[in-house]
Amino acid sequence: MKIIEGGVCAAKGFRAAGIHCGIRKNREKRDLSLIVSDCDAAAAAVYTTNLVQGAPLAVTRRHLKSGKARAIVCNSGNANTCNKDGEEVAEEMCVIAAQALGTEPERMIVASTGVIGQRLSVEPIRNAMPLLASLLRTDGSALAAEGIMTTDTVMKEAAVEFTLGGKTCRLGGIAKGSGMIHPNMATMLVFMTTDAAISPGMLQKALSGDVRKTFNRLSIDGDTSTNDMAVLLANGCAGNPTIDSDNADFAEFMKALNTVTVHLCRLIAGDGEGATKLLECTVRGAKTEETAAKVAKSVICSSLLKAAMFGADANWGRVLCAIGYSGADVDVSRVDVDFHSAAGTVCVCRGGCGIDFSEEEAKKVLSEKEIDILISLGEGEKSATSWGCDLTYDYVKINGDYRT
Amino acid sequence: MKIIEGGVCAAKGFRAAGIHCGIRKNREKRDLSLIVSDCDAAAAAVYTTNLVQGAPLAVTRRHLKSGKARAIVCNSGNANTCNKDGEEVAEEMCVIAAQALGTEPERMIVASTGVIGQRLSVEPIRNAMPLLASLLRTDGSALAAEGIMTTDTVMKEAAVEFTLGGKTCRLGGIAKGSGMIHPNMATMLVFMTTDAAISPGMLQKALSGDVRKTFNRLSIDGDTSTNDMAVLLANGCAGNPTIDSDNADFAEFMKALNTVTVHLCRLIAGDGEGATKLLECTVRGAKTEETAAKVAKSVICSSLLKAAMFGADANWGRVLCAIGYSGADVDVSRVDVDFHSAAGTVCVCRGGCGIDFSEEEAKKVLSEKEIDILISLGEGEKSATSWGCDLTYDYVKINGDYRT
Repeated sequence: MKIIEGGVCAAKGFRAAGIHCGIRKNREKRDLSLIVSDCDAAAAAVYTTNLVQGAPLAVTRRHLKSGKARAIVCNSGNANTCNKDGEEVAEEMCVIAAQALGTEPERMIVASTGVIGQRLSVEPIRNAMPLLASLLRTDGSALAAEGIMTTDTVMKEAAVEFTLGGKTCRLGGIAKGSGMIHPNMATMLVFMTTDAAISPGMLQKALSGDVRKTFNRLSIDGDTSTNDMAVLLANGCAGNPTIDSDNADFAEFMKALNTVTVHLCRLIAGDGEGATKLLECTVRGAKTEETAAKVAKSVICSSLLKAAMFGADANWGRVLCAIGYSGADVDVSRVDVDFHSAAGTVCVCRGGCGIDFSEEEAKKVLSEKEIDILISLGEGEKSATSWGCDLTYDYVKINGDYRT
Repeated sequence: MKIIEGGVCAAKGFRAAGIHCGIRKNREKRDLSLIVSDCDAAAAAVYTTNLVQGAPLAVTRRHLKSGKARAIVCNSGNANTCNKDGEEVAEEMCVIAAQALGTEPERMIVASTGVIGQRLSVEPIRNAMPLLASLLRTDGSALAAEGIMTTDTVMKEAAVEFTLGGKTCRLGGIAKGSGMIHPNMATMLVFMTTDAAISPGMLQKALSGDVRKTFNRLSIDGDTSTNDMAVLLANGCAGNPTIDSDNADFAEFMKALNTVTVHLCRLIAGDGEGATKLLECTVRGAKTEETAAKVAKSVICSSLLKAAMFGADANWGRVLCAIGYSGADVDVSRVDVDFHSAAGTVCVCRGGCGIDFSEEEAKKVLSEKEIDILISLGEGEKSATSWGCDLTYDYVKINGDYRT
């Protein structure tokens, strides 16, 4: 398996495009994206667990009952949520896109991201769709990635190449993240595609299983969006024997998928709203994976720790504190904590107690852009990783007046 | 019942003092406080639910098994937590204070607040104790309140006067809050005293019952400290018939206690780290109090909403969103939301959907110092209130480099 350039069009038989259609006031920001498979694809999705769910999610759920999809249409600038006519608008988006693509509305996946509670006018989408469809290209991934961005500062794509039954397959995707991303819930917007042949049932199993260990262990601010969705389309263009059971090919497929999702997790975390640092917390030596995950998630979510990381302050007491309120059954007197980065490693806690360390050395380690928080529980063999970012002035600034 | 001036010495038979003993570098900050009853008092306490617990909590728990206490000693500047010899130091603090007061170490309540994981030297405390004991005064509440402050910007006290069995009683207290305060856990440091006569068992019942609805519904940043504790001493100096059952006097006592704790909650929330606004979220029309509390707590904890309130941005979608991920069983299509302050009320959501409102009017309402977020679930008769604050640049600044 190798990591390759590209994103949602890395796999054969997918094209994409993104343009500015007028939902956002800023003409320089793309706000409408389209991702299309040359033929019907097996389709899987996971959705936010927020009780308040965006209208597009309801429509997508209905369409994906068939396990098949042809294309994804997504706008930014308006979440189409908490509106009286949200579902009608989302359905209409599907009709408009399907018409332009020569497919059925039921084969469309629809998504929206942006402000909640304002009516989404379908007119800019209707007017722009013929142009958008005409712009679909096999090198259009980056433009589609731009079209789904909200407060993201960089577009996010990742892709891998791998082999199944002697055939070269690819899997890649784009994501939008930034604020409102919280573990234990389905996440942000992630659109992934592969040319591997895999049954809808196994595709859903792969996605659901992977998300549990990746996007659900990612936190920017502890808030869970109403519109989060991760989608994976598999169009079979690679010509491999269709994966329809939990066999060796499925394991290889899971590895490829995980490589892309972890990459996207890191991109999303590092570009959290206002973030200056990517934080990765790895918990080892846990009795169960659940314990490791609980601890890793609690630590990555601590506002106090996140602010300390922003200040490059080795305030490890906040790590211990977050372990303590994680709800995990942990023997604190066995806990070790290290901070690690490209600049080195600093050991700060052994057996639940502070140990002497050089503040100067620690400052150097924590001044890097990527910080690993390494926790050993000393109680078993299980581990888990979570991803997040520091809490900064700019997070407050971005969210203090998001709508204007 | 009337609200009166004063705090932890409002009740008869209590004296207090606070000085700078040298734990903190800044000589202008008091860092050691003493609160003393003239005679042994019934004593009740609630503690943090963090698995990592400060050494002073372990010592206080042991001492309070008797249900009696004489005095409280508390330092700021060092939490005496995650240290190898923390309990020995906490016990030694009790020995030193008891000696100066002529009581037994087992009658002492000990607390510490500040940085975790650094050894607390007992020497400054030993050296300062004779002077501190000599400074005990019935008007010393404010000085004691200053001595327990960390990043608090104002000292916090509250007191009420009420009548039990024809006798005038008083109940008052001091608190320190600021960061690391989270619902569903015992909270910050709160020391309360009353001259009412009440059995240790009923005193504990009163405190535990009240905390559930007050300090446990208070959130600054979602983090739960390792050292949080709320203590209530009752020395019986008012001469009322001792409350030893759930009678009318107990109900009156609960009312007095609640008045003080709500007052302290509001002071703590309004002085959250970096806060510019006090937020109060009241949820009505819930099927159960638990549902109302879950929703109120979820909303007050949302970083996105807190940042929006800082920016006086009526982004009510974030309220809906936080209701949606609260875990409470709520019919979103019945939810109404209003923002209210001294400047008026603005209705922003009816039946789960946005309604037109004047942004200008909303800005005026949200520019006040105290904002009420009013939520109606339209499903029942139960209600709950939670308290919090906005998320500001200064929260990040304070916590980005707390230790230096």
